[in-house]
Amino acid sequence: MQAEIITIGDELLIGQVVDTNSAWMAERLFEEGITLKQITSVHDDAAHITAALDEAFTRADIVLTTGGLGPTKDDITKHVLCDYFHTRLVSSPQVEAHVRDLYSDRPDVLNRLTATQWLVPEACTVLTNRVGSAPIMAFTKNSQFSTLNSQLLIAMPGVPYEMKIAMDEQVLPYLTVHCALSTVNRHRTLLLSGIAESALAIHLEDFENRLSQRGLHLAYLPKDGTIRLRIDGANCDEALAELKTLVKDWLVLEQDQPLELALGQRLRDKGWTISTAESCTGGKLAALLNKHSGSSAWYWGSVVAYDNSVKQHVLGVSADDLSCYGAVSEQVVRQMAEGVRQLCHTDCAIATSGVAGPTGGTPDKPVGTVWIAWATPLGTEAQCFHLGKLREQITDRACTKALIHLCQVLFRGW
Amino acid sequence: MQAEIITIGDELLIGQVVDTNSAWMAERLFEEGITLKQITSVHDDAAHITAALDEAFTRADIVLTTGGLGPTKDDITKHVLCDYFHTRLVSSPQVEAHVRDLYSDRPDVLNRLTATQWLVPEACTVLTNRVGSAPIMAFTKNSQFSTLNSQLLIAMPGVPYEMKIAMDEQVLPYLTVHCALSTVNRHRTLLLSGIAESALAIHLEDFENRLSQRGLHLAYLPKDGTIRLRIDGANCDEALAELKTLVKDWLVLEQDQPLELALGQRLRDKGWTISTAESCTGGKLAALLNKHSGSSAWYWGSVVAYDNSVKQHVLGVSADDLSCYGAVSEQVVRQMAEGVRQLCHTDCAIATSGVAGPTGGTPDKPVGTVWIAWATPLGTEAQCFHLGKLREQITDRACTKALIHLCQVLFRGW
Repeated sequence: MQAEIITIGDELLIGQVVDTNSAWMAERLFEEGITLKQITSVHDDAAHITAALDEAFTRADIVLTTGGLGPTKDDITKHVLCDYFHTRLVSSPQVEAHVRDLYSDRPDVLNRLTATQWLVPEACTVLTNRVGSAPIMAFTKNSQFSTLNSQLLIAMPGVPYEMKIAMDEQVLPYLTVHCALSTVNRHRTLLLSGIAESALAIHLEDFENRLSQRGLHLAYLPKDGTIRLRIDGANCDEALAELKTLVKDWLVLEQDQPLELALGQRLRDKGWTISTAESCTGGKLAALLNKHSGSSAWYWGSVVAYDNSVKQHVLGVSADDLSCYGAVSEQVVRQMAEGVRQLCHTDCAIATSGVAGPTGGTPDKPVGTVWIAWATPLGTEAQCFHLGKLREQITDRACTKALIHLCQVLFRGW
Repeated sequence: MQAEIITIGDELLIGQVVDTNSAWMAERLFEEGITLKQITSVHDDAAHITAALDEAFTRADIVLTTGGLGPTKDDITKHVLCDYFHTRLVSSPQVEAHVRDLYSDRPDVLNRLTATQWLVPEACTVLTNRVGSAPIMAFTKNSQFSTLNSQLLIAMPGVPYEMKIAMDEQVLPYLTVHCALSTVNRHRTLLLSGIAESALAIHLEDFENRLSQRGLHLAYLPKDGTIRLRIDGANCDEALAELKTLVKDWLVLEQDQPLELALGQRLRDKGWTISTAESCTGGKLAALLNKHSGSSAWYWGSVVAYDNSVKQHVLGVSADDLSCYGAVSEQVVRQMAEGVRQLCHTDCAIATSGVAGPTGGTPDKPVGTVWIAWATPLGTEAQCFHLGKLREQITDRACTKALIHLCQVLFRGW
């Protein structure tokens, strides 16, 4: 089963909005065993949308579109689809009732523009958009290209949370019924740290050659100083076992799980809690730790000590050490970790202090220098890293390093 | 001048990586007056890459690709481009010297796989990748489609920070010379808050009709409870002045600037500093405030008080109020703001406390209820919001609301 995604909207092509929808949809399709051939982003332009639909239908059984379904003039997807499927707009009492209910406490929204949302193409099946006013529309198209009796097009709103709920509650169940989905894609991912991509590829060269003979495929995804190593293909369990042995020195996680979730799970298992004291990461580490629901079981709180006065007065870092060793030092980062651990009464704590740049670097401590400390019931450790040259890269990598080390400590014991 | 972007990599089509490169490149191209027609993401598959190149060259003068330039087996872009442009790989002493210099302190990376990085297609012009080993390659292609003497293809690495530096330092200057860029796109954006998209569109209906007669275009971009309203087209200054009058009741910013930068600028102008106390936003607001370089001039620090014990012991929130009114209440959020303001010795402070969900909602305080307080030298204010149903949406919107209100206070005075 092959699919394509077309994301529609001028804002995507002038860079005003990042298309996060496609990756999210791609992941869901992959899990269902649907191969995504191509993602295409086009303007709110009737001729271009039509051409993109034509091209996609030469390659794919299923075409999913997002965007262009709002009530304002710049949104034209519904009209283009009407022309494409030779149908006309009719009023849908079902959508009208839903939209009236959705905005029952917002009379200002129930205006004549919003009323255009319950006009839907006669030839489509309307799927419910539980959290928004734009209808989700499913069309069928007869064609010689497809392995299905007919090809499918499903149009969804571009607002990410509306699209996500639509996919999970409506579109994927609809596809399961209409496309008789059964196969599920096999892929397994290991998370590694501490080796360069090219060195790893040389280390795995023989293994990789043998893999291709078995119809399996290895992909390397470097990110923030880690490498996600992915095996694709049916029956990859045996190869995976061999791979794990080959990379055991750099293995951090045996699944493609966000680091913060893996760490949280381990903390919960041990009944431990955590806090953070952040200078250069500025709250990013805290936000990462409480990103997912359920984190309140093990994440207690943080102090973002950007200014030295906060390091000193809130975290209790020694003023002498601050002036003698500087804020980016082993002494200070250890005191930050121990300070926040005590302040928040947690079992573990992580502290970061570094030069995120672009200014503030010195010959001694160039931009990218980051000290990280980990305090746990078993003691305090600290390590210095050099994490690149760009602010965002440095702080992202610092968060990754901070989580990896604590994961390793918690998974392996001391 | 028309351009297209092709992003290459299996990871994009199984949703393992979000394509953030395209939006970033799109914005830069737009600023240079280059119209981006389409963004296409394809697998590391020679036939599909070739087909995508052929299609793009029927529509565009310039094709930019990212991805597939790593030293490992799954990266094939360089080989595909060799075939596409009927050329062969040759060793580049210039790239070799650069890569050896780049990894002079990393002997483990200077291995035979990395050595393949200095093999480049004979027919291309190599542009320097200052921060990585993959060469940036510019090709020309004779064609009847283009308004240029020849069409251009530039291949860049997919690693975001390498691509960004490549674009700014190499690719855009190269395009400026080779495409004689001169026109710069005109567009102006206003940031509004406090009105629904459809109500705004009705309010602006007459104005919008008159706009199209002048060849101008209005686009609505709703995000996190705000609407960015964009006018596109040459000579839009007069229309913009009229628009500003029409939307003055909801106008937050007169330019497309991140809220945190606008707020930071205003704080710096006043010589004021800020801190935050966060429960439901969990550090996101802090990370937003110190995202950009220079924030240390006005951002002092934060306390993420996720657990009530931290609210009480670090921020000094009354235990009685916590148990009587609950953590999500006006009383508590006011004390959080005043507490962190005092603790960090700042002029202003923002505090957030809410039910981010998916669990924890009550009939009284359903998921999405968020209290925000702003403490400044002129007093403390607090407001309750209902910000949706999804964790990420709620916390993003809470950050936006928190910044908007303080911006308005600082811009308008009290």
